[in-house]
Amino acid sequence: LRRNAIPHLSKIMNKTHAADLSRIFQSLSLSHQHKLFDLIKDIEKKGILFSEMDEDTFLYFIADMKIEDIVAILEYMPSDDVADIIERLPEDKADLILKTMKKKESEEVEDLLRYGDDTAGRIMVPDFIALREDHTAQQAIESLQKEYVDVEMPFYLYVVDEYGKLTGVSSLRQLVVVSPDTPLKEFMSTAVFSVRTDTDQEEVAKLVARYDILAVPVVDHMNKLVGIVTVDDVIDIIREEATEDILKMVGAGQEFVETKSVFKSTKIRFPWLFASCLGGIIAFFIIGHFEKSLSKVTYLAAFIPVIMGMGGNIGTQSSTIVVRGLSTGLLHVRDIWSVVFKELSIGMLLGLIYGSLIGIVAQLQYNLPAFAVSVSIAVITSMSVAALVGSMVPMIFGRLNIDPAVASGPFVTTFIDIIAVFCYFQIATLLLEL
Amino acid sequence: LRRNAIPHLSKIMNKTHAADLSRIFQSLSLSHQHKLFDLIKDIEKKGILFSEMDEDTFLYFIADMKIEDIVAILEYMPSDDVADIIERLPEDKADLILKTMKKKESEEVEDLLRYGDDTAGRIMVPDFIALREDHTAQQAIESLQKEYVDVEMPFYLYVVDEYGKLTGVSSLRQLVVVSPDTPLKEFMSTAVFSVRTDTDQEEVAKLVARYDILAVPVVDHMNKLVGIVTVDDVIDIIREEATEDILKMVGAGQEFVETKSVFKSTKIRFPWLFASCLGGIIAFFIIGHFEKSLSKVTYLAAFIPVIMGMGGNIGTQSSTIVVRGLSTGLLHVRDIWSVVFKELSIGMLLGLIYGSLIGIVAQLQYNLPAFAVSVSIAVITSMSVAALVGSMVPMIFGRLNIDPAVASGPFVTTFIDIIAVFCYFQIATLLLEL
Repeated sequence: LRRNAIPHLSKIMNKTHAADLSRIFQSLSLSHQHKLFDLIKDIEKKGILFSEMDEDTFLYFIADMKIEDIVAILEYMPSDDVADIIERLPEDKADLILKTMKKKESEEVEDLLRYGDDTAGRIMVPDFIALREDHTAQQAIESLQKEYVDVEMPFYLYVVDEYGKLTGVSSLRQLVVVSPDTPLKEFMSTAVFSVRTDTDQEEVAKLVARYDILAVPVVDHMNKLVGIVTVDDVIDIIREEATEDILKMVGAGQEFVETKSVFKSTKIRFPWLFASCLGGIIAFFIIGHFEKSLSKVTYLAAFIPVIMGMGGNIGTQSSTIVVRGLSTGLLHVRDIWSVVFKELSIGMLLGLIYGSLIGIVAQLQYNLPAFAVSVSIAVITSMSVAALVGSMVPMIFGRLNIDPAVASGPFVTTFIDIIAVFCYFQIATLLLEL
Repeated sequence: LRRNAIPHLSKIMNKTHAADLSRIFQSLSLSHQHKLFDLIKDIEKKGILFSEMDEDTFLYFIADMKIEDIVAILEYMPSDDVADIIERLPEDKADLILKTMKKKESEEVEDLLRYGDDTAGRIMVPDFIALREDHTAQQAIESLQKEYVDVEMPFYLYVVDEYGKLTGVSSLRQLVVVSPDTPLKEFMSTAVFSVRTDTDQEEVAKLVARYDILAVPVVDHMNKLVGIVTVDDVIDIIREEATEDILKMVGAGQEFVETKSVFKSTKIRFPWLFASCLGGIIAFFIIGHFEKSLSKVTYLAAFIPVIMGMGGNIGTQSSTIVVRGLSTGLLHVRDIWSVVFKELSIGMLLGLIYGSLIGIVAQLQYNLPAFAVSVSIAVITSMSVAALVGSMVPMIFGRLNIDPAVASGPFVTTFIDIIAVFCYFQIATLLLEL
C-alpha cells in the first residue's frame, strides 16, 4: 500500500464487489483495512462488507470507529443483517448504536431481535410489497413506482386485505399482461405459502427448496403479513445447516470453529471425546476381565486394532448415511426397519468379506485354525453389530425428536468399541477353550 | 383406494402440490401409483412429479406407459429436467423418446446432453429473456408481453448486442420506472456476472451464493448468451454437494445410496474399509513385533482400545473441520500452517486432559506409576499426532488439487491406527524397560 498507489487502488476498490473485498480484508492488517475501507465511496458496499466480515475481524475493525460512522453505514443495510451485527456486539455498544440510529430503523431491528434465534421472524426482512386486493393492476403499478422503488427483491407482489392479512400473491409479469383496470383479487393466486414468525429457519429453507420459490412471506399469529424471507438467506441457511450437521456428527460444535480460539475449540470438542474415552475405559475393563485368556494366547491382542477399526468405520458409514438421509428428507423415521435391515445386510456382507480376509492373515501368521476362525467371526460380528447400531441409533433418536446428528456420534462409537472388544474375546475364549 | 373414493381423491390430487405428491407416491404400490397419476389433470404437475421421483421408482413407473403419453408430459417440462430424465433411461428408450418429441424440444434436450455432467451447460435452461440493447423500455415491455410470456423466472432481463453477445442486465422494475423511450443501453447495468457452459456447477453455486443473485447467465466460448442457471437449481446443487462431501468423508460414495441395492452399496463402501483393514493389519504386525513386551505385561493390551479410540476420534474431528472449511471457502490451502498449528495445539491440550485422566485410571487399577505414565504419554502422543495428521492431510490434498473429502478419510484413519499403536508399545517398552 504505497502512498502513490492510492488513487489507483481507490478505483479498483470501487469496482470490486463487496463479497470479494471481504476476502481481501481478512488477509490485511487492521490499519490497512481502515485505509482501504475509507477509499470505498458506496455506503451500501460498506454495509455488505460489514455483514460479510467474520465476527472477530468485525469487532476489531469497528473498535475505534465513531458510532455515528457505524450507524451511517448500518442505516443502509437490510434490517436482518443489522440485527445479526447488533447481536454480536457487546451490550453497551449495541445499545449506543440502537439509540443513535433513526427511530424507524432501530425499531425494525429491535423488532427482529425480539424473535427467537433461528426463526423465520429473526431472518425476515420488512422490505416486501403488499398491495391491496381491491386495487387494480393500474393502481398497483403506480404504487410500485411511488412507494416500492426501494424494495430489494420485487418478484412477488403479496396481496393483503384491508386488515393487512395475507390473501394472495401476484407478480410483476401478471400486472403487465392483464388489462389495467382488473382488480388484483381477480387475477392473484390464492395458493400462497407462508410461514409464521416462530417457524424454525430450517423449515423455511425446506419449504423454499421444496417448492422452488424465491421468497416466503412471514405472517404473525393473526395472519398479518410482517416480512419475507428471501432465497439468498435460504441458501445461507442450507449451507450453515449442512456444516452444522457435519460438525455435530463428529462432535466439533455447531458452527465452524476454525476461526475460534484454541481454548474455545477445545471446550467444544471435549464432551464428545469424553464419551469415546468412557467407551475405551469400559473396553479396558472388559479386556481385564479376559486377562486369563490373554495371558495364555498373547497374540489375541494383535487383532484388537483391526477388529475395532473395521467395526468403527462401518458404523460411522451407517450412521452418517442415516443422519444425512434424515436431515435431507431422503429417509424417514417410519422406515426404520427397512433401513436397519438393509444396513445390517451390508454390514454382514462386508463382514464376511473382510472377516475371511483377516482370518486368512491370522491363519498364515499363526497356523491355528481355531484362532483364525475366531478372528473371522469376531470381525463379522463386530461389523454387523456396528452397521446395526450405526443405523438404528440415529433412527431412534430421530423418532424421539432428539437431533440424530448430535446424539448418534458418541453413542455409536462408544457402543461399537465396547461390543467389538467383548465379542472378540468371548468368541476366542470359547473357540480356543481358554 | 376404494372405488367410490375416486372423485373425492381426484379433487385432493389436483389441489396438492406436485412436490408433496411425489412423497406420497414413494409409499404406494405401482398400480396405485398409476391410478393416482391418471387422476392428475394438470400435465405440468405430472412433469414435476416425473422429475421428483427417484430413479428406481421412475423406471418402474414408466415401464408400461405408452411412449406418446410420456412424451406429452416431457414436452411440458423444462429442458434441463428432461435431459436429466433421458440420461437415466436405457438407451433404446431414450432414443425412442427423443425421436417422438417435437423437433425443437428434442434438439434443446440433445444440446444439453452434449455438455459434460455437472457443468453449467448441463443444468442451464434456455428460458431466458434477451433484449436488444438498442431497444427502448417501451419496445422491451411490448416484447415481454408478446414473446416472453412463458418464461419461468423473468426477474433478470439480459441485454445482448446484435450478435447475441451478453452486454448487460436490467430488470422489470427498471423498465417500469424509466421513461418509455429510453434505450436499454442507457439504463442497463453492465456489471453482469456470467459463467461459461463448461463451468463446474459447484462454481456456479458458489457465485450465486456469494453474490446473492437469482440466476446466472451462461455464455458460450463466443460470449453469446445461451441459457441461465436459476437459483432453485443452485439450492439443489448446494444440498447435493453437502451430501456428497459428508458421504465421501466416510467413504460411502458420492450420492445418497440408501435407495440403491445392498450389493451396489457394498461395492461403494468396500474400498474405504479396505484402507482401514490394511491399517489394522499393519497394526497387527506392529503388535506382533512387541510380543515380548506384551507377554511380560499382559495388561498392556487392555489400553489399546482407548488409545486408538481417542486418536481416531480427534483425528476425525480435525479432518472433518478442515474438509468442510475448505469446501465452504472458510479455510484456504494457503493457511495450511496456521490451521495445522492450531489443530495441533488443540490436540495436545485435549491429549493432556485425557492422557491424565486415563493415566489415573491405569494407576488406580494397577498401581504401577511407570505403566500409568506410559499410558498417559501414549494418549497425549496419539491425540496430538492424530490432530496433526487429520488437519494436514486434507490441506495437502487440497493443495495438490485432489478432493480432500475423498482422499482424507482412509489415509487419516489408517495412519492414525498405525501411529497410535506403535507409539503406545514403543513408549511402554522403553519406560517399563521390557
